[in-house]
Amino acid sequence: MTTAAQSPITPTTEPESVLALARQLRVDAIRATTAAGSGHPTSSMSAADLAAVLLTRYLRYDWSDPARRGNDYFILSKGHASPLLYAMYRAVGVVDEPELLTTYRRGGRLEGHPTPKLPWVPMATGSLGQGIAYAAGIALAGQEMHDEPYHVWALCGDGEMAEGSVWEALDKAGAHKLGRLTVIVDVNRLGQTGPTEYGWDLAPYAARARAFGCAVLEIDGHDVREIDTAYEAAVSADRPTVILARTVKGYGCAKVADSPDWHGKPLPADLAEQAIADLGGPTHLRVLGPGPINADRDDGTATGTGVPRVAPVHVPSPAPLPVEAPGFAKGEEVGTRAAYGKALVALGEDQDVVVLDGEVGNSTGTGEFEKAYPERFFQMYIAEQQLIASAAGFAARGWRVHAATFAAFLSRAHDFLRIVAIDGPPIHLAGTHCGVEIGPDGPSQMGLEDIAMMRCLHGSTVLYPADANAAAQLAVATNKLSGISYLRITRGAYPVLYEPDEPFPVGGSKLWGEGADDVATLVGAGVTLHECLAAAEELALEGLPVRVLDLYSIKPIDARTLRRCATDTPLVVTVEDHRPEGGVGEAVAAELTDVPCMIRRLAVRDVPGSDSPEHNLDRAGISARHIAQTVRDTVAGSIV
Amino acid sequence: MTTAAQSPITPTTEPESVLALARQLRVDAIRATTAAGSGHPTSSMSAADLAAVLLTRYLRYDWSDPARRGNDYFILSKGHASPLLYAMYRAVGVVDEPELLTTYRRGGRLEGHPTPKLPWVPMATGSLGQGIAYAAGIALAGQEMHDEPYHVWALCGDGEMAEGSVWEALDKAGAHKLGRLTVIVDVNRLGQTGPTEYGWDLAPYAARARAFGCAVLEIDGHDVREIDTAYEAAVSADRPTVILARTVKGYGCAKVADSPDWHGKPLPADLAEQAIADLGGPTHLRVLGPGPINADRDDGTATGTGVPRVAPVHVPSPAPLPVEAPGFAKGEEVGTRAAYGKALVALGEDQDVVVLDGEVGNSTGTGEFEKAYPERFFQMYIAEQQLIASAAGFAARGWRVHAATFAAFLSRAHDFLRIVAIDGPPIHLAGTHCGVEIGPDGPSQMGLEDIAMMRCLHGSTVLYPADANAAAQLAVATNKLSGISYLRITRGAYPVLYEPDEPFPVGGSKLWGEGADDVATLVGAGVTLHECLAAAEELALEGLPVRVLDLYSIKPIDARTLRRCATDTPLVVTVEDHRPEGGVGEAVAAELTDVPCMIRRLAVRDVPGSDSPEHNLDRAGISARHIAQTVRDTVAGSIV
Repeated sequence: MTTAAQSPITPTTEPESVLALARQLRVDAIRATTAAGSGHPTSSMSAADLAAVLLTRYLRYDWSDPARRGNDYFILSKGHASPLLYAMYRAVGVVDEPELLTTYRRGGRLEGHPTPKLPWVPMATGSLGQGIAYAAGIALAGQEMHDEPYHVWALCGDGEMAEGSVWEALDKAGAHKLGRLTVIVDVNRLGQTGPTEYGWDLAPYAARARAFGCAVLEIDGHDVREIDTAYEAAVSADRPTVILARTVKGYGCAKVADSPDWHGKPLPADLAEQAIADLGGPTHLRVLGPGPINADRDDGTATGTGVPRVAPVHVPSPAPLPVEAPGFAKGEEVGTRAAYGKALVALGEDQDVVVLDGEVGNSTGTGEFEKAYPERFFQMYIAEQQLIASAAGFAARGWRVHAATFAAFLSRAHDFLRIVAIDGPPIHLAGTHCGVEIGPDGPSQMGLEDIAMMRCLHGSTVLYPADANAAAQLAVATNKLSGISYLRITRGAYPVLYEPDEPFPVGGSKLWGEGADDVATLVGAGVTLHECLAAAEELALEGLPVRVLDLYSIKPIDARTLRRCATDTPLVVTVEDHRPEGGVGEAVAAELTDVPCMIRRLAVRDVPGSDSPEHNLDRAGISARHIAQTVRDTVAGSIV
Repeated sequence: MTTAAQSPITPTTEPESVLALARQLRVDAIRATTAAGSGHPTSSMSAADLAAVLLTRYLRYDWSDPARRGNDYFILSKGHASPLLYAMYRAVGVVDEPELLTTYRRGGRLEGHPTPKLPWVPMATGSLGQGIAYAAGIALAGQEMHDEPYHVWALCGDGEMAEGSVWEALDKAGAHKLGRLTVIVDVNRLGQTGPTEYGWDLAPYAARARAFGCAVLEIDGHDVREIDTAYEAAVSADRPTVILARTVKGYGCAKVADSPDWHGKPLPADLAEQAIADLGGPTHLRVLGPGPINADRDDGTATGTGVPRVAPVHVPSPAPLPVEAPGFAKGEEVGTRAAYGKALVALGEDQDVVVLDGEVGNSTGTGEFEKAYPERFFQMYIAEQQLIASAAGFAARGWRVHAATFAAFLSRAHDFLRIVAIDGPPIHLAGTHCGVEIGPDGPSQMGLEDIAMMRCLHGSTVLYPADANAAAQLAVATNKLSGISYLRITRGAYPVLYEPDEPFPVGGSKLWGEGADDVATLVGAGVTLHECLAAAEELALEGLPVRVLDLYSIKPIDARTLRRCATDTPLVVTVEDHRPEGGVGEAVAAELTDVPCMIRRLAVRDVPGSDSPEHNLDRAGISARHIAQTVRDTVAGSIV
């Protein structure tokens, strides 16, 4: 048995030691999962040789400083093979044996699927087909921002190649010739329920990856020499490399190897004991792999594998440059999209700001940034999953990222947003063309579920400006936020309601026309604020004074003002160009559950159609006319 | 000028007449969009020749009977080219000229992007990259269920080929060798903001489509002979065919042709007039294309293009077979997943029921159906977008479709669900492994946003059973529902709470332990119902009687019982294994806005980790302990 006192395994170590390390990774994966009574030993064992060669000879990483900018990335796209990842961490000395044996348990940081609770994990994985997308995003950021020449390694399963998102990612990787990206596919031929779509037939994967612009290498994933040769080719390729490694699930334990019955199951104690013994028992090999690029060795040369030393053109600063939002004259008709575009241009003064587009930049406003700062504008085309994954990739490198498409199409990336929200880096999104207000384009283009989707994300901020000054200020404000921020943006141009110097703090609101005799508070945001103000005018003429609350910050919500209004007026009417579920109305209702007031919620309850914005708002029952009538009916009702 | 009295264009008409039809389609697209002041004439014009040949010689369709089962399908994946579609409808005589000129307007059925308001449109399109997925689903259903040999034609744009969902669809189409699917890609090289990723370079598309198992043909999309030859090859191919047609955006009007500045813009009146004149002016050509397969012609032969006459093995009946749900003994520990699986097997007695899996059938319960009815079970592998698209495809053919994966992963298909909800066919979904209750697998696997997502869909039903009998009954009940139904399913096994003959109507609830002195109503569903019952027991011992409401039907919600309870007890506590936004708590709060009661909402507010189910529920603050304490605190607070 090897002990910790032995010399570490280094990049120049003989293949036999690499094989010994692979055995240790397998043993540790078995030990951790059997101790937990849960997890995926067999999916870890298939990839242990691939991991051992990578760790020993290719992954240039300073394990004492995971924030070091020259570090390579290793992203475990097949997140269920986390025991392998944790075994790797033990081998490099950042996780000790007792911690390894807490895998999956006690709320520790070694979770069932890796999350950024671990400082070496940039993005959570476990929803398959996503790790490769984030890897492409991080590689894209590195190449396009002339960052240090770190390499990005993604380890995928063969099952996840059925996800369209994998090909969406490889399309971008191929088109940008991301030589710094290597995707290792652990083709162990078995999914959760049985054989994968193509089993051990590597030909379909090879043809596809090539067609998507990648270099392709087919290897035996248990032959360390073949693995080594493939990695060596990958690090110097002029395009992304996809390594298709034929492997055996559960390799190293004959009883479970290549069996469809052992997915996601820990080995029972007796079988585990036998398997561990067959693999040579627990060992304590320590790996000292290549250091990060641009780190000096004792002999004055850079470490890594022959990568030339380079300094990045520019390293983003953690502190955003203070930027003044553009202002618009009160009364002028300006779209919030136009204001968003101008705000992005203003933010562009901060040279750490980048903008990503989903091929709708002339509709969302991001096209303005493209004109002003083409070198920091990136076209993701019609590929919303990769839009979000690339945004996260740039953000992981410290860039302040703004990305936009139609609100409706952000739903395409819901699962990606969900994963980024698990302690991922901050990204700032805008969704335009929300609601029935878009008019003629019809329901497929109307964002009507976006507030619910965005509110539900952990740590998110949801903003919905009603005029150009609010939109510009809020867009600038998002630049400093953590988590996922979302700016909901209307299609049409409406009169500017506020002075350019009116402040719009996140978590605030604006109260219009407060009076002691108000019979109702109308709560609007975005386009419905204009409808609320029109209704208030109409009602005032009828002797029914109401106040109007501009709830531009939906999450966090201005609970104090809301509660005060609900206490002052017996009726609260919420109006939203969104479905009734999960939006403004429910956010308000949830906030006022202990305030004795009546709440009426106007929202889009049917399938809308193609019509003018005005007709669509009216047909959906969220126009000034309906708001006023709701107040009249309810007030009359309570008098009776 | 041709008049309506002229002989119609038939499959044997000379190419010159087809060209005349193509000119009419262009003219009509210009007329409709200029009249509307909105829309996409240039994207319609590029594909007019492709459409004219299809309509005249290949699309076997009985325009007087869109429900006829032998009809082919034409799905406009590039939904923004709707003016072309509507021009086609005029040419076959189902839309007249006055209606054509109302495109996009007055809430009519000719919407900005096509929806099933039109009887010839099976699925809404307009969120790009989806039409092809539904086409694959419909073709898959036809092939696998031995249905009539209808052909499915999808017309796509080149821009949407950047969506991963396209390749996810082609993967399934290729793997199943769907010869009845033809994808026509209108490669006009221009997207909304400028050139597409690959412009007129057809090579990447060709290599990719081939690698995904498709036959590929590259043609000049304005040469009707080349188009004809390609279609002829496509209808007899033994695998899906992708026709890459090089076209010119705005073809037919030199002023806008191949210009990046004319996406989504109607021609101004003067330019429109000139263009229409150049194209030969408005015409009234009428097309009498090939009739549907299996329809007799006068001469006794079948119509269509040489397709042999066949009868489907079985045509689904519109009326579901009454099926009895399986029952479970009270007190037994049974997972709702197991009950769901057994219920699917029971439903399988109805031979019109099919089940689709996202490669997790041994976790969700669908694997039980696979064992019982392998011929009606379809493995979609790890591809949730295509899981939903295929489900919709089977449903469009009348099959009663049940599909399941982890609740978390259904978020991958959010945009597809949004589109299916636009008057699409009924599909019945189950999402398992919801909430922190799953325990060790960690946050990436926890469905914590699914209730919000599913509630928000138009016309949806959201059910969340707490025990096996409820799960089985509700699963059986969904089979008869329209729209999208969603059954939320817990991972663990819990004691059966109800007798097997207890009825669970959709829209109902179950009230436990109602008493006149109740100080609170605890509202739970799924796993939290068990926590509520435990809390109620604890509180009863302390002299704090509470009732417990099992809100198994979240949408529609049992408003009557909820309101009665909220009136009876001063406090309502909602408890959900879901984020606080858009879930049970907000659904309840929104329902009780005019009932003066206090509502406390317990939900998952932080990022959960890996731990045992019990610990996870407790750490999230939704366990019996927290529920009881909330009641104590609030009751004490209101006494003070």
